[in-house]
Amino acid sequence: MSKYWSNLVKNIVPYVPGEQPQDKQYIKINTNENPYPPSPKAIEAMKAAIGENIRLYPDPECKRLRDAIAHCFNLSREHVFVGNGSDEVLAFAFMAFFNPGLPILFADITYSFYPVYSSLFNIEYKLIELDDNFDLPVDRLLSGNGGIIIANPNAPTGKYIGLDCIEKILISSNNSVVVVDEAYIDFGGESAAGLVNKYTNLLIIRTMSKSHSLAGLRVGYALGHEDLIQGLDRIKNSINSYTLDRVALAGAEEALRDAEYFDTTRRKIIATRDRVTEKLRDMGFKVIDSQTNFVFTSHDKISGGELFKQLKDMGILVRYFNKPRIDNYLRVSIGTDYEMDCFLDAVGKIIESKV
Amino acid sequence: MSKYWSNLVKNIVPYVPGEQPQDKQYIKINTNENPYPPSPKAIEAMKAAIGENIRLYPDPECKRLRDAIAHCFNLSREHVFVGNGSDEVLAFAFMAFFNPGLPILFADITYSFYPVYSSLFNIEYKLIELDDNFDLPVDRLLSGNGGIIIANPNAPTGKYIGLDCIEKILISSNNSVVVVDEAYIDFGGESAAGLVNKYTNLLIIRTMSKSHSLAGLRVGYALGHEDLIQGLDRIKNSINSYTLDRVALAGAEEALRDAEYFDTTRRKIIATRDRVTEKLRDMGFKVIDSQTNFVFTSHDKISGGELFKQLKDMGILVRYFNKPRIDNYLRVSIGTDYEMDCFLDAVGKIIESKV
Repeated sequence: MSKYWSNLVKNIVPYVPGEQPQDKQYIKINTNENPYPPSPKAIEAMKAAIGENIRLYPDPECKRLRDAIAHCFNLSREHVFVGNGSDEVLAFAFMAFFNPGLPILFADITYSFYPVYSSLFNIEYKLIELDDNFDLPVDRLLSGNGGIIIANPNAPTGKYIGLDCIEKILISSNNSVVVVDEAYIDFGGESAAGLVNKYTNLLIIRTMSKSHSLAGLRVGYALGHEDLIQGLDRIKNSINSYTLDRVALAGAEEALRDAEYFDTTRRKIIATRDRVTEKLRDMGFKVIDSQTNFVFTSHDKISGGELFKQLKDMGILVRYFNKPRIDNYLRVSIGTDYEMDCFLDAVGKIIESKV
Repeated sequence: MSKYWSNLVKNIVPYVPGEQPQDKQYIKINTNENPYPPSPKAIEAMKAAIGENIRLYPDPECKRLRDAIAHCFNLSREHVFVGNGSDEVLAFAFMAFFNPGLPILFADITYSFYPVYSSLFNIEYKLIELDDNFDLPVDRLLSGNGGIIIANPNAPTGKYIGLDCIEKILISSNNSVVVVDEAYIDFGGESAAGLVNKYTNLLIIRTMSKSHSLAGLRVGYALGHEDLIQGLDRIKNSINSYTLDRVALAGAEEALRDAEYFDTTRRKIIATRDRVTEKLRDMGFKVIDSQTNFVFTSHDKISGGELFKQLKDMGILVRYFNKPRIDNYLRVSIGTDYEMDCFLDAVGKIIESKV
């Protein structure tokens, strides 16, 4: 703590991302990265973007990338905002649409960055407790609120709620913005993007880090009514006019255009996930049905913390949250089939030694 | 205006960056970009960073880049923060070190993003009026304040104040943070980086957009006591864990290591600037002595607004600020010798037609 810190910086509790170890080679299934490389066409586009023009600022309006995104969802450029990863877009949404005062609502078990944003921007929040199956009690989201944020599918549980529930929430909260964080939607469930033209209070936030294998490039985006997009723009233009560099703009655009590659890798991950789920259950693991590129799992014979530690010692990195209600679970990202076989082999040995 | 906008987003007045026209080819000397390409070694490093690993998040602590920056200034990694352009670093500094209440101080004519940050983060400010020669009355910065921010050299005037003045300010404001924005320091004047180990309240903010020709890559950084760097880190980690992508990290690191290329291009720009200054004065222009990669200039025979418009019609884009005290000036970035000859030729014709 320094006497020069603002009251704000003194009081916040920053987010802690999953480890990005530089020391040794792990089987790294801890931060939901995609095990497959980005589209070869995206790689080519990125390389082509590197040259003399790097000396020039990028397009501050990111028109070409926004057009490419709009095209994917049958929307227009005015419905699209792009940012430096979906985390930045989420932060801007908290600033643009939530006020100090009336609390916003989100689940007690969800992306742990939401309370961080709330504390940073002085937004009160009320936690909605998931039931014992980690299902969201949708009826409890239908009361007065200053905004709602739902990760769908949810992280780290992997559970999805249907668009009928999302619509119910949008209708009952028509005085506040409902943010649907679809970071993992490409691995299961149906996107709410088709509702953008129907509900002016819907903001969808998505990332290209997971399903497009671009975590290292930092591209996220939002879809919504153009008034909401303008709100985000006003925040962005009060912080940093250019948040995406020339290489990221070019690579993301081309990755979106390569729909075939996207679909192939996405399906491979879904198939691996379903296979891993089955194998884990065969070993006595409880595994929540996942609509994402990770599984959330626990076992009666060993605590989450201990299993995390033993796996790490064996060179396998998964994510453990030392938090109430989920401290017995591990979140395991879906890697290649080879990586998951190593993981299954390792947990098999650990569980056997416990029996 | 939308009913869904927060009070914050309703009340801000966002920054408007210089035009980045996509319509036709201009001689573009309006946003202080470097006319020379980045170091060939940086180009190679960026290309090498593009491959399968783009699927993985970048190092959230940006250790290698921070080490490279630290090395340039004989500091250590703990003295260095990196961000997505110096604008993002400035925004984080406003959040980390300034409080609502006691006003911060900055010049009435300076980087026009400072009042935008103040309004976004609800920080009161007091403008210190530059004198008629656009000099900063340093004595007026020695009274109680909630923080100080000085662009040195200043933009858009190009004027520099010496380190003796900076030290006076640091000593008298030892209860608040003094931010020295050195976006243009590589084109003239002495950096305050040597004072980092002496004053715990000094934060220097720099960009790689100008002197390193990397505007399209989005890299800025801060130098300061490790307590200040930790404050910035806490803000970053409450917004976005990864603000620099893998390509930017690699390119910036290599650009810093290529000191010879940096020095050659920087000197070429300084030589062109001095030549342009002389030629403009020969044509009757008032030109402020510049320590930057731009000149700030006016002429008795034509208003700034009209000259801007006529130049644009002739395919030459410069920056015009329609603001009190400087609305008769143009800020002209230093391009290649060829570009500046075109500019000189054009203004020559315009002025002749007025005589």
